[in-house]
Amino acid sequence: MKVLRITRPGGPEVLAEEERPEPVPGPGEILIRVRASALNRADLLQLRGHYPAPPDVAPDIPGLEYAGEVVAVGPRARRFQPGDRVMGLVGGGAWSELLVTHEREAMPIPDGMDFADAAAIPEAYLTAFDALVLQGELKPGETVLVHAVASGVGSAAALICQAMGARVVGTGRNAAKLARAADWGVARTVLCDARPPRFADAVREETGGRGADLCLDLVGGSYVPETLNALAPRGRLMLVGLVAGAATEVNLGTVLTKRLRVTGTVLRSRPLEEKIALAQSAERHLLPLFRTGALRPVIDAVVPRADIRQALERMAGNDSVGKLVVRWA
Amino acid sequence: MKVLRITRPGGPEVLAEEERPEPVPGPGEILIRVRASALNRADLLQLRGHYPAPPDVAPDIPGLEYAGEVVAVGPRARRFQPGDRVMGLVGGGAWSELLVTHEREAMPIPDGMDFADAAAIPEAYLTAFDALVLQGELKPGETVLVHAVASGVGSAAALICQAMGARVVGTGRNAAKLARAADWGVARTVLCDARPPRFADAVREETGGRGADLCLDLVGGSYVPETLNALAPRGRLMLVGLVAGAATEVNLGTVLTKRLRVTGTVLRSRPLEEKIALAQSAERHLLPLFRTGALRPVIDAVVPRADIRQALERMAGNDSVGKLVVRWA
Repeated sequence: MKVLRITRPGGPEVLAEEERPEPVPGPGEILIRVRASALNRADLLQLRGHYPAPPDVAPDIPGLEYAGEVVAVGPRARRFQPGDRVMGLVGGGAWSELLVTHEREAMPIPDGMDFADAAAIPEAYLTAFDALVLQGELKPGETVLVHAVASGVGSAAALICQAMGARVVGTGRNAAKLARAADWGVARTVLCDARPPRFADAVREETGGRGADLCLDLVGGSYVPETLNALAPRGRLMLVGLVAGAATEVNLGTVLTKRLRVTGTVLRSRPLEEKIALAQSAERHLLPLFRTGALRPVIDAVVPRADIRQALERMAGNDSVGKLVVRWA
Repeated sequence: MKVLRITRPGGPEVLAEEERPEPVPGPGEILIRVRASALNRADLLQLRGHYPAPPDVAPDIPGLEYAGEVVAVGPRARRFQPGDRVMGLVGGGAWSELLVTHEREAMPIPDGMDFADAAAIPEAYLTAFDALVLQGELKPGETVLVHAVASGVGSAAALICQAMGARVVGTGRNAAKLARAADWGVARTVLCDARPPRFADAVREETGGRGADLCLDLVGGSYVPETLNALAPRGRLMLVGLVAGAATEVNLGTVLTKRLRVTGTVLRSRPLEEKIALAQSAERHLLPLFRTGALRPVIDAVVPRADIRQALERMAGNDSVGKLVVRWA
């Protein structure tokens, strides 16, 4: 089978096609022919050598999500049959013609959805769902502050909030991209084109002075102190990414007096049982909303495999809105 | 009735005795003759004008906890009868001969326990129980890092951990006070007599490299970045006090990759229903452990009301181990 491998640390140019032996599904596992995958910022980090794969994953093949069809099932695997269309997250190795995953980590692709659309779902929606709902305890009527709302995770978060009866204030650094946010039900956008960013006043204005109940933060850095100011009493901050950096000064007095909760989260390093639990919860709670149309993939572009390097450059340049999808075969 | 009131912002010298009208218990409330109260660092802050009382409480009478006896009950109050011995938290005003509180915020004093012992329980134990168990999700087998372990809240936290099958690593700035910690089941103490404090290596050594599952932090400031280093993956930091200050630099990368959770908490500003819920939960889950002896008040000294100013000076000087109790009448 063909894979895209990292030949040395660097930019998209270090990816090269290579032939590898086909994997064999073990007990409870399924073998999938990948038909589409999607890009994530973590791929850029991994290319540069800054985000190593977990120990049980090929260290040199990127790719965190896939849509494809089952071609074989291992012993005691019972959820799927060859020919079934599935999608899901993997710890790495999705930029490959074939991959093996535990059958309980895979989710069925909704009827009528094509592989390219399906490939845009797993990372964006499972990240947003886990952070907002499972950990962030999102409830209807709340106001949610979503940073980088035009990103793949940001737009998925906005649509989940809309579907659950919550109101979104979204931030971003690009006015043209923010103009798209109304499509995802975002009530108000705040352009943050200066550092440090200023959005707390807008959030308070949007909430009658109260502040946001929950924040999904893909940015970190200097956004964090301003986010603490923008949160309501008992507000929750879910830290999902650190595009703006890891070091920041915080006022613990704000955390204490407003009784705030700050939670860091990553998906990739989780143990199997947690990954399965998340996939099963998303299958139960999110997939029905794709069937009704309340949720949908937000796709910047679908490109053929040959153009993956240019697509990675586009993501690195912050030009994309939603997900960049790569058709595999 | 006599009260101790704050005559102007300042130190313990600004307290003066004054005569006030007796309060009348309203629906669901009880009138209590205070027999003992205890001191808290928050009282020192309030004396200086830095920690105002909630809106429904006398702004100039300190005192956050009491033990006493019921002298009258208001309409529809059913839990207690005149003569019953009760203890509890109030938003302020406990340094008074009489106080009124909602009957569901008051807890019965365990049989055989005197008023001075009972007065040492509410703030220390409800703070520690709420932070460790209700919010911190303490479970048996875990290792808990308790900063300022020789304080009232710290020693109560250690005893709760011991009673629940958790292991404690305790920090403090005074070797003589830390020597007492073995009495409360503390497995290891770390003397932090330099800034920034260093305890993460000791915690890792005590946990086979893993780190602490939970931290109860009364100190804040420069303790926080080192605490993030000392926590295990998915560790929880409960911020309860900021004796070392509110401003600190944090590494969000540690929060993210270890999936940490940082929660700020205060009791005093909570609405009635939350205060009742905490008192009821403590009555259900903590009081039985006082009856068995697994938990006990940790008392530095019991002083007569006339000596309250000296006792406040002792607390301000960080000389006390456990609670300073004042006999009221």
